[in-house]
Amino acid sequence: MQWKTEIDTARNRIAKYVVQTPVFQSSGLGLDFPIELKLEHLQHTGSFKARGAFNTLLSTNVPAAGVVAASGGNHGAAVAYAARSLGHRASIFVPELAGPAKIALIERTGADLTVVPGEYADAMAQAQSHEASSGAMQVHAYDASATVVGQGTVLAEWDAQGLADHTVFIAVGGGGLIAGAMAWAQGARKIIAVEPETSCALAQARHSGTPVDVAVSGVAANALGARRIGKICFELAQQQDIACVTVPDEAIVDAQTRLWQAHRLLVEPAGACALAALTGGAYKPARGEKIAVLVCGGNIAPDPVG
Amino acid sequence: MQWKTEIDTARNRIAKYVVQTPVFQSSGLGLDFPIELKLEHLQHTGSFKARGAFNTLLSTNVPAAGVVAASGGNHGAAVAYAARSLGHRASIFVPELAGPAKIALIERTGADLTVVPGEYADAMAQAQSHEASSGAMQVHAYDASATVVGQGTVLAEWDAQGLADHTVFIAVGGGGLIAGAMAWAQGARKIIAVEPETSCALAQARHSGTPVDVAVSGVAANALGARRIGKICFELAQQQDIACVTVPDEAIVDAQTRLWQAHRLLVEPAGACALAALTGGAYKPARGEKIAVLVCGGNIAPDPVG
Repeated sequence: MQWKTEIDTARNRIAKYVVQTPVFQSSGLGLDFPIELKLEHLQHTGSFKARGAFNTLLSTNVPAAGVVAASGGNHGAAVAYAARSLGHRASIFVPELAGPAKIALIERTGADLTVVPGEYADAMAQAQSHEASSGAMQVHAYDASATVVGQGTVLAEWDAQGLADHTVFIAVGGGGLIAGAMAWAQGARKIIAVEPETSCALAQARHSGTPVDVAVSGVAANALGARRIGKICFELAQQQDIACVTVPDEAIVDAQTRLWQAHRLLVEPAGACALAALTGGAYKPARGEKIAVLVCGGNIAPDPVG
Repeated sequence: MQWKTEIDTARNRIAKYVVQTPVFQSSGLGLDFPIELKLEHLQHTGSFKARGAFNTLLSTNVPAAGVVAASGGNHGAAVAYAARSLGHRASIFVPELAGPAKIALIERTGADLTVVPGEYADAMAQAQSHEASSGAMQVHAYDASATVVGQGTVLAEWDAQGLADHTVFIAVGGGGLIAGAMAWAQGARKIIAVEPETSCALAQARHSGTPVDVAVSGVAANALGARRIGKICFELAQQQDIACVTVPDEAIVDAQTRLWQAHRLLVEPAGACALAALTGGAYKPARGEKIAVLVCGGNIAPDPVG
């Protein structure tokens, strides 16, 4: 797979549908070094997921039955939004865990939404059943190349915005976002995978040498709680020997509070997870190491406005 | 007054103390034209006020008794933060109207805080009394040249970030921010003053030909509720014949909701006021007119996190 070419092509393909999200230098987070932040949570539907969704829908012949997706919330909202923007039908299946704010976000797109009792795997089972009976196209949340290529446009865009030789911290759930980043960087940049201790499918897979099922819980579960890491992500992580850091839920909530108190950035726990590796002290930068953190999701619950 | 020179000097003076706030193109706010947003609410203490506070403290000999300020909340937080950063004592007087979130923000700086029954004018009376008895230096929220010059660095910075020939929409309370913008632009840019219908000191002054006292209420009162426009602002507005737009509270709340729903930007009502002139329909851009909106404050109450 010619990842870099694919990601460059995807950037052009999705350019007019996505936000070029801003970056800035933070020095107010209580650390003794500055951090470059990319505010990807300002993306349409509040997370990077819009990139993979648009790339998938724009690079495939979508059937008349439209698209279907299973999601903890953010991917479903992104697929629903992209489908509406491009004139396709969308059926979205989310577990109750998605919560009222993400459910309301999906409802506002006009998609056909089903809230499934249980967890993500139950929503996926219903989505697959719908796919089989309707002929709708399944859009996978993280383990499909069109999704990974779309998410890879985040780091490609950041490079174009002047990211230097920073070490980049990225939160990992199923691994679509960091897979895109690794696919773009091709080993030429230090990337750190950050997962909650309560759901660390990549760290466990790296430890075991193969993707394994993990238990999933904690404050970021509806965004990062994949039971098993995606194969594409795992293979890239093995090739590039990516470092994994895990953080406790308390560090995630603390990082979330710091982003609000220092910069009025209100993010969901998953959006603060990468930062928590630094503010919680799990990762200590070397002297002179430049640090960059991707802020990936803002769909906090409850919805504070509107 | 050599405003542009002063503002250029101030930019260098405060550079290492303030955030260079990011800008981005929004196309998701329900309008049929894009808007360039500058996210000045990501500034330290959640508003542009940090710029004027740092410029004042860095360009004056601060007495051992420190500084004193009266404020609806944002200016007080900024002065308290700048004072702490520079090693000065700060005494801040706020009316009850400031609300618990802004009060907590000031308390976190360690400043000596007094919550005064009544409104802004009552807080100012106590601040003046403290100034007289203690020898502390008064930092005026908007009608002092060092404050205006500091706030002027917002537009100077935005110009350097590539703002083109956009019309810039700016919310007005006492007028320090827009005075700084007018001082920088020197009539070479179209600037629109936006005020709530419930507190429109500049519009009333322009109508009357002189600053007059106005009644103050509404959702943005603790940030924009100046009873009388500052003289510096008024004189620049008269010289440059600035257009004033007033917006109803409902339009402000609607704009605030749109910023959250479209971009996960959570701002206080004052921070959405300038946008409300467009989303509420009070201002209709000409064909091809480029639009830019300054998002000036994010200190929403109640505090959603932490």
